[in-house]
Amino acid sequence: MTTTGKVIKCKAAVAWEPNKPLVIEEIEVAPPQAKEVRIKIVATAVCHTDLYHLLENKQKDGFPIVLGHEAAGIVESVGSGVTEIQPGDKVIPLFIGQCRECRFCKSPKTNQCVDAWKGTGHHDVMAPPDSRLTCRGKTLLQLAGTGTFSEYTVVGEIAVAKIDPAAPLDKVCLLGCGVCTGYGAAVNTAKVEPGSTCAVFGLGAVGLAAVMGCKAAGAKRIIAVDINPDKFEKAKVFGATDFVNPKDHNKPISQVLSEMTDGGVDFSLECVGNVEVMRSALESCVQGWGVSVIVGWTELQNISVPPLQLIAGRTWKGSAFGGFKGRDEVPQMVKAYLNKKLKLDEFITHNMTLDQVNDAIELMKHGKCIRTVLNVSS
Amino acid sequence: MTTTGKVIKCKAAVAWEPNKPLVIEEIEVAPPQAKEVRIKIVATAVCHTDLYHLLENKQKDGFPIVLGHEAAGIVESVGSGVTEIQPGDKVIPLFIGQCRECRFCKSPKTNQCVDAWKGTGHHDVMAPPDSRLTCRGKTLLQLAGTGTFSEYTVVGEIAVAKIDPAAPLDKVCLLGCGVCTGYGAAVNTAKVEPGSTCAVFGLGAVGLAAVMGCKAAGAKRIIAVDINPDKFEKAKVFGATDFVNPKDHNKPISQVLSEMTDGGVDFSLECVGNVEVMRSALESCVQGWGVSVIVGWTELQNISVPPLQLIAGRTWKGSAFGGFKGRDEVPQMVKAYLNKKLKLDEFITHNMTLDQVNDAIELMKHGKCIRTVLNVSS
Repeated sequence: MTTTGKVIKCKAAVAWEPNKPLVIEEIEVAPPQAKEVRIKIVATAVCHTDLYHLLENKQKDGFPIVLGHEAAGIVESVGSGVTEIQPGDKVIPLFIGQCRECRFCKSPKTNQCVDAWKGTGHHDVMAPPDSRLTCRGKTLLQLAGTGTFSEYTVVGEIAVAKIDPAAPLDKVCLLGCGVCTGYGAAVNTAKVEPGSTCAVFGLGAVGLAAVMGCKAAGAKRIIAVDINPDKFEKAKVFGATDFVNPKDHNKPISQVLSEMTDGGVDFSLECVGNVEVMRSALESCVQGWGVSVIVGWTELQNISVPPLQLIAGRTWKGSAFGGFKGRDEVPQMVKAYLNKKLKLDEFITHNMTLDQVNDAIELMKHGKCIRTVLNVSS
Repeated sequence: MTTTGKVIKCKAAVAWEPNKPLVIEEIEVAPPQAKEVRIKIVATAVCHTDLYHLLENKQKDGFPIVLGHEAAGIVESVGSGVTEIQPGDKVIPLFIGQCRECRFCKSPKTNQCVDAWKGTGHHDVMAPPDSRLTCRGKTLLQLAGTGTFSEYTVVGEIAVAKIDPAAPLDKVCLLGCGVCTGYGAAVNTAKVEPGSTCAVFGLGAVGLAAVMGCKAAGAKRIIAVDINPDKFEKAKVFGATDFVNPKDHNKPISQVLSEMTDGGVDFSLECVGNVEVMRSALESCVQGWGVSVIVGWTELQNISVPPLQLIAGRTWKGSAFGGFKGRDEVPQMVKAYLNKKLKLDEFITHNMTLDQVNDAIELMKHGKCIRTVLNVSS
């Protein structure tokens, strides 16, 4: 099965430095090393985390980098020792791998493979130092170990989910991050219960997927919260029952939700990546048993809250990739989509090509899209 | 059963203002009103929360007050409508009531009766405005609705646990707060698992009870953390297996624990009431599934931590009175003590009289005791 591939020259969108437009470049993609897989990216979506790294993250050593981590493609070649993946397989790259051997992979409690977070505390987890991409003699980092704004990329075998050959890659690419992240945060991390009342803060793709997850888990009432009321119509499609725009109120949103629900919601999900919203989401939960899950990502500030909020019986959790063990469960999510148990098409508001990536970034920056899917290769 | 009692004049220790010694005064204790119970306090222990209110809390309207909330006594009289309690019953007053009728009492998930936290956000929960105690024409607040540094006090029927007549009140008084708080935080809130590794921060009575709870739950390894190494010997009695003094290390204690445990503990319990320790306790937990429980009480500062700590799979909870539903479960804890399934005597380092309450406070202030039990009435 092993192919001794050569360097591939191909097109990629390179972020040379923070806060600048990406540049379409010809890059070199090295052959996969042992236990690695080289993938032809067919479709990649733009996720807010790409923007976060480009526009907000202050890590100085995070550039130049190939952004993009929510994608699907076809295996081009594999390195030595790769046993479960073959050239031609349809796959989704994973930004949290699943080695299946560490104590985390062996535990049903978590999807946090020990290899997934090696960088934490030592290096920017968004831009691990190892990379197979170069351009003009410089190493290009791969966002979160993936780097899918490129016609080809190389990832570890543990970071590849082999999916149903019938899957349309320009749809299921969304399962590489946003949809699994939000849906799983509700179903796996919060463990939303039938008949419960939920609140979802932030109605981007992750938040909408969280709404969908709450509904799938049997929530009776799903309160969608966003400062952009244009998102409410879409939230309804995914199952939201109530809609709150914090700008319509001059009191804390936790108080508004408490009044709407006789004391607070059973479950809340923060899908923004803002520490103030994380606090609001916790404080919107009912005393005694309310569970709040942080889904949005930020490394810029700390969350902060009076300890009494927890002592009064609330639980504060976080979710990464919705708690899904990627190699095992992403293929199941693909099947759920193929079996019409899961919506994906409804997230896609725009289709573009890789050349238009900066336009896609602008759309997201201004909240004008849910998901833009970039057609990378045919 | 209803008695139409008269005002009782008796001795109590009154905190007239913050940061001053208590004054032994003659006070008036009104008869119990409807659904209330007047109790002759036989024994009361001094808990750190009494000191917190006296020395640290900045609530201006929290004085004058009768402190004390960890006690046991004998019912003197009951108000109209009291059905489950009779004069002569041995009881433990509860600072979190159990009405048995609200949605919180009806849920197995929480002990946070809706009546228990009415004051939160509106008034100091430590000093609810209603009181049956007066002295020299002034209303004396009752700490946490109890106020047991007094020969008599009056509490609601929902805040009284009727206990086994065989129980020695000068021992089981500890079940009115500290021991249930720590033990239950491990068993009920953290839900410590057999074979797990735990860390307990702070080895006062609450922390030692948490150690005992971890052991009862089957923890394999219990790491006791305190800056006062004099506490380690006692912690061993309750089941601690490892001992860490943060002063012996010049790196963060979370790093020390991570190195001792190959990545962090499964469960941690903060039994100090210090927001920095609360953060350390969370960060000492292993990624993926670590659960940290805040047991110590402070309203002075916020807890603060990078969101990534939770996103990496840790859970942050809080515990009040160890999650015990007081009327139902405190009597069971008393029985466990009588059946030698639970240690209480080992917590008691000093016995004094109510007149010596200021000496008892000084001992605790300087970490020279675990529990001092005050003999109030014979």
